[in-house]
Amino acid sequence: MRKSLIRPLVEGLAPYVPGEQLTAKGLIRLNTNENPYSPAPAVLEKIKEAVDGRLRRYPNPGADGLREKLAALHGCKKENILVGNGSDEVLELAIRAFVEPAGKDIEAGERSGSTVQYFWPSYSLYPVLADSAGALRNPVPLLPDFGIASAERLKSEGKWDFEAALSFVTTPNAPTGRGYKTADLEKLCAVQRGVILLDEAYAEFAEENAMELALEMPHVLVARTFSKAYSLCFQRVGYVIGSEELIGALHKIRGSYNVNGLGQVAAEATLENLEYYQKNFERVKNTRSEMRLWFAMHGFLTYPSQANFVFVKPPLLSAQEWYQRLREEKILVRWWADEEVKDYLRISIGSEEEMQRFCEVAENILMNHSNTSEKNGI
Amino acid sequence: MRKSLIRPLVEGLAPYVPGEQLTAKGLIRLNTNENPYSPAPAVLEKIKEAVDGRLRRYPNPGADGLREKLAALHGCKKENILVGNGSDEVLELAIRAFVEPAGKDIEAGERSGSTVQYFWPSYSLYPVLADSAGALRNPVPLLPDFGIASAERLKSEGKWDFEAALSFVTTPNAPTGRGYKTADLEKLCAVQRGVILLDEAYAEFAEENAMELALEMPHVLVARTFSKAYSLCFQRVGYVIGSEELIGALHKIRGSYNVNGLGQVAAEATLENLEYYQKNFERVKNTRSEMRLWFAMHGFLTYPSQANFVFVKPPLLSAQEWYQRLREEKILVRWWADEEVKDYLRISIGSEEEMQRFCEVAENILMNHSNTSEKNGI
Repeated sequence: MRKSLIRPLVEGLAPYVPGEQLTAKGLIRLNTNENPYSPAPAVLEKIKEAVDGRLRRYPNPGADGLREKLAALHGCKKENILVGNGSDEVLELAIRAFVEPAGKDIEAGERSGSTVQYFWPSYSLYPVLADSAGALRNPVPLLPDFGIASAERLKSEGKWDFEAALSFVTTPNAPTGRGYKTADLEKLCAVQRGVILLDEAYAEFAEENAMELALEMPHVLVARTFSKAYSLCFQRVGYVIGSEELIGALHKIRGSYNVNGLGQVAAEATLENLEYYQKNFERVKNTRSEMRLWFAMHGFLTYPSQANFVFVKPPLLSAQEWYQRLREEKILVRWWADEEVKDYLRISIGSEEEMQRFCEVAENILMNHSNTSEKNGI
Repeated sequence: MRKSLIRPLVEGLAPYVPGEQLTAKGLIRLNTNENPYSPAPAVLEKIKEAVDGRLRRYPNPGADGLREKLAALHGCKKENILVGNGSDEVLELAIRAFVEPAGKDIEAGERSGSTVQYFWPSYSLYPVLADSAGALRNPVPLLPDFGIASAERLKSEGKWDFEAALSFVTTPNAPTGRGYKTADLEKLCAVQRGVILLDEAYAEFAEENAMELALEMPHVLVARTFSKAYSLCFQRVGYVIGSEELIGALHKIRGSYNVNGLGQVAAEATLENLEYYQKNFERVKNTRSEMRLWFAMHGFLTYPSQANFVFVKPPLLSAQEWYQRLREEKILVRWWADEEVKDYLRISIGSEEEMQRFCEVAENILMNHSNTSEKNGI
């Protein structure tokens, strides 16, 4: 009888569940925070121009051209930047570079070195990545309004580990949409002794961002992605900025050719067409404002969102029922069964037309429920 | 004073050094085993057609369409296949799924569970991946003619660990080009108790392949890539086939969207145009035969190659000097300083024109050396 070939750690893993990727006709997908607008025509053109015999060649192994353009954009050096196969890969590399796997009999003093820490609720990939690496998790509850507590309060409450090997802070946060002030993040970073990664996947839809902290503090990283703001989910390009020391460590463990060539071409072209995207950010933010008003007028509890989605507590029916009713009408939104968020839906900001359709369907659901209730004499 | 933020394991790593990716004009690159021929025109067309607003969407998270086509090709189920961000990612996932990191005070009985094993010389990424994962390495010397010893001989010599958590066998081997018989590999697999991954990156250029072993034996995996035979290095698509148990474990730890969308499109289109590629395999193999004859006639020691490169021991000058002279003439080949291979060059099979130029340059180097020797009275 052969012994198990698979590590017990891996046998026990529950994998990350991405938002459903259905493609049925007429479906409105507001469940994965994709951008409703196409990449710039000039970007599409640049990609097409690159589709020729050169595909037989390896791409640039360090994404050097892209890193040079990003360095110019952010005012840093190429050596302060690593590009990943989407920012998900960046998060995974950070765990592998900075977090020790937890030993069988870990001592108290070693605990922090094996800890991946994050506020909760936030990006549900963090615990999955921590588990995959055999790290310890330390989820720290957000405040009831989904804000983060001040560094002083975190200290006095004693749940946050200021020595944790790696802390993720999603800002603006997902799935709540809450943005955190750079001044507050700076205070937290100033007293944090382990690596802190500010995951700014949605920063382009926010009022401020914390990139300056990565350029100033040697233990702070900021991750960004071309997926959301720059409509490039398909091509998997994300990046992280920080001190040469930390970035150098990530480079040591990344795959030699981790970023596909057409993704590099697309991202470089994107940086040459930023005006096009900035107009789209405004469109998304306008739609977000209109939706917030609509939600407020229809009894949905909402929080101010700094991202390209809104997090709402719907009225009359449970969030799970809303999720199902919307799904029956071919509208996908995101719902999680976890206790902290089970009363909420996360709804991506789609195009004006998509949100119009969402409102119609939601108004029907509300109306039908009221009618049913009246008939039943409720 | 802040303690080090980076794991000692990572601080000590020597990263993998890929073949130089220079792009100077007129350069002939025979150093990274790229295919000299373009992807099929129909494949390029399919990619271009996919470059539109859909790039804002996430790609299929499991590369399902591609896996279905691969399953039909290899006569297995979709569940027997995992697609990676190049086959390099597949190798890395295998280590993370099957190999325990070595503890500080590892006991003899636990040693095998932390061991990544491979014949040497072979793909120089294996030790790098093993080190990154904190695993133990067990490189086992190939025979003097770069063949692998029989299972019986491996047993009697005692260097090969039949319990090793994960063994890589590159077949055909790189950098030597030697192919191994499926019957011999089967005998090795039959007595191996840990996972064995047959890395068939160059299988399409060989006389036989060992895919049947992955479909029959639950602890055997076969990895393939679209990079070499299918001229798609740029888009990073590799895959691995094996039992549902092993493949399922790899799926648990892969990134949710690990394969870029245009890579999936390209690989699917490739499978619809196999005839085009089969003609190219023949062209590469013909050039390889002609080159072997040329090498033999010019005093280079060669081994029969089953891959799209040849491994040669050059005459008169050292391999390092040949590498440098060729480089001065804008021809890049691969040379390693490691003791076992320092007398050899690995030379990729380029187009007929490129190899013609290689021969001219090499003949000049030979002639100049003879002239210089005569002048010096040697």
